[in-house]
Amino acid sequence: MEVTFLGTSSAVPSKNRNHTSIALRIPGEVFLFDCGEGTQRQMAIAGISPMKVTRMFITHLHGDHILGIPGMIQSMGFRGRQEPLEIYGPPGIHELHESIMKLGYFTLDFDIHVHEVKGGTVLEEEDYRITSAPASHSVFNLAYCFEEKKRPRFLREKAIELGLKPGPAFGKLHRGIPVRVGDRIIKPEEVLGSPRRGVKICYSGDTRPCESVIDLAREADLLIHESTFEAGSEDKAAESGHSTAREAAEVAASACVRRLILTHLSTRYKRTEVILNAAREVFPETDVADDLMTVEVKADDSGSSA
Amino acid sequence: MEVTFLGTSSAVPSKNRNHTSIALRIPGEVFLFDCGEGTQRQMAIAGISPMKVTRMFITHLHGDHILGIPGMIQSMGFRGRQEPLEIYGPPGIHELHESIMKLGYFTLDFDIHVHEVKGGTVLEEEDYRITSAPASHSVFNLAYCFEEKKRPRFLREKAIELGLKPGPAFGKLHRGIPVRVGDRIIKPEEVLGSPRRGVKICYSGDTRPCESVIDLAREADLLIHESTFEAGSEDKAAESGHSTAREAAEVAASACVRRLILTHLSTRYKRTEVILNAAREVFPETDVADDLMTVEVKADDSGSSA
Repeated sequence: MEVTFLGTSSAVPSKNRNHTSIALRIPGEVFLFDCGEGTQRQMAIAGISPMKVTRMFITHLHGDHILGIPGMIQSMGFRGRQEPLEIYGPPGIHELHESIMKLGYFTLDFDIHVHEVKGGTVLEEEDYRITSAPASHSVFNLAYCFEEKKRPRFLREKAIELGLKPGPAFGKLHRGIPVRVGDRIIKPEEVLGSPRRGVKICYSGDTRPCESVIDLAREADLLIHESTFEAGSEDKAAESGHSTAREAAEVAASACVRRLILTHLSTRYKRTEVILNAAREVFPETDVADDLMTVEVKADDSGSSA
Repeated sequence: MEVTFLGTSSAVPSKNRNHTSIALRIPGEVFLFDCGEGTQRQMAIAGISPMKVTRMFITHLHGDHILGIPGMIQSMGFRGRQEPLEIYGPPGIHELHESIMKLGYFTLDFDIHVHEVKGGTVLEEEDYRITSAPASHSVFNLAYCFEEKKRPRFLREKAIELGLKPGPAFGKLHRGIPVRVGDRIIKPEEVLGSPRRGVKICYSGDTRPCESVIDLAREADLLIHESTFEAGSEDKAAESGHSTAREAAEVAASACVRRLILTHLSTRYKRTEVILNAAREVFPETDVADDLMTVEVKADDSGSSA
């Protein structure tokens, strides 16, 4: 599972940092978390096709998180997209969509399904779940959490011992469906190993440090937290509804995550050492995102698969 | 007078080419011609402040020419702009402005004056004039022409001979206002040299080769013409309302311009030699624009100042 930071600036972009967007690549799909202006070009540079984006999750309705949506949609239409696009976002997302559809001349041959989210479960699929929680910004902001549902290992030899033949029955049992062999019903738990942890990734959007993000991010493999200001600028951060690097690190520590990556950096910081050092004092497993940085995220199943 | 190509792609951006925008820097002001997505970041890279943009001229309402406006406006607001911004564009520009003002949460402390243009004179200032003409695209597209009004040289020694003293009277006469010395009225033409040509720059926007652009660009120092396709793709160009490199060069030759720069290149062309060579066969003084290329444009007053 790969996370690519398409843009890592805060309100205004700089030479080196585009507006915010994060791509999460899972098998067969790309999710975008936020879509600031210029995201489609960052994807061209990163070699990720916008046509593979199935879902966009918008944290809040500030321009630096949403103004790439119109161009992304129009380019998808221009390239002949047919597959629907799902857009999730806070209250106001329907009105945003309406305004976006009035920006100049274009035609789309695909449907856009817009989903208003206020918190809680956003969607539940066979292989993953997305949940959300209101965070604490100057406007309503959703933090999002992606959780992979990893199936237990299929105990092939055990299944054969029980009289099953390799084939569709194996798949059914692995997906949790009982199978009949002669007179006997074989239950999934008879041929499955112990539960396995899937990958858990949490993204804060723009927020003050807050309990709801700590709860949502609990034991995540990766927390992506905003860090608009450096340590020492707590007042400015509080005024504008943002976090400092140290505050983000405190959230990571409280949530017992495995790794923290800071993003949404003010253009005033040309060098990121100060931000990084302040955060690492509190939470050593911290990095600062750069534009186009890709990280592979794996689950820590050391505890659960034993 | 400097022209900077902020973006040179056509409908979709590529690694090397952002969506269309051209900055014209004249003393004290920056004009933007078109404002595709990502223009504000291109300006950051080019070192041109969005705060200095006084006027935007929009050729037509396709996304690749307009979707940088929302972010530009919001960033100007974020940076505390107070000065009004003038936006000129084709019919539909008022509705576009209305939709742009509904894109998420933001506040502006400056006024935006939107001007609908259908062709003809766009504005006339003391030092320059902007004119326009409908071109020939799939939707209504305006070509724009910037013309510097260059004052004739002020013949200082002649003025002193006529009894004038250096001071405000010199400036008045240079600006075309008669001045009284004793009983006598001195007329500007008595102390001014022969007329001088100012810089003339014409930008086509998206268009088929057409007479109205030829007329508008007549004897321009620089024609910036779209060249979405290479020579040999005339059918595709005609279908989509665009021009090939050769067609753009034919426009330049017919208009007797001094220099042609091609822009708005399809992402299918990774190497621009083919485009350049086809155009140069017809019009040798041709170049192909790259992102962030800056050219200085001077008037050719060799004929008129003699």
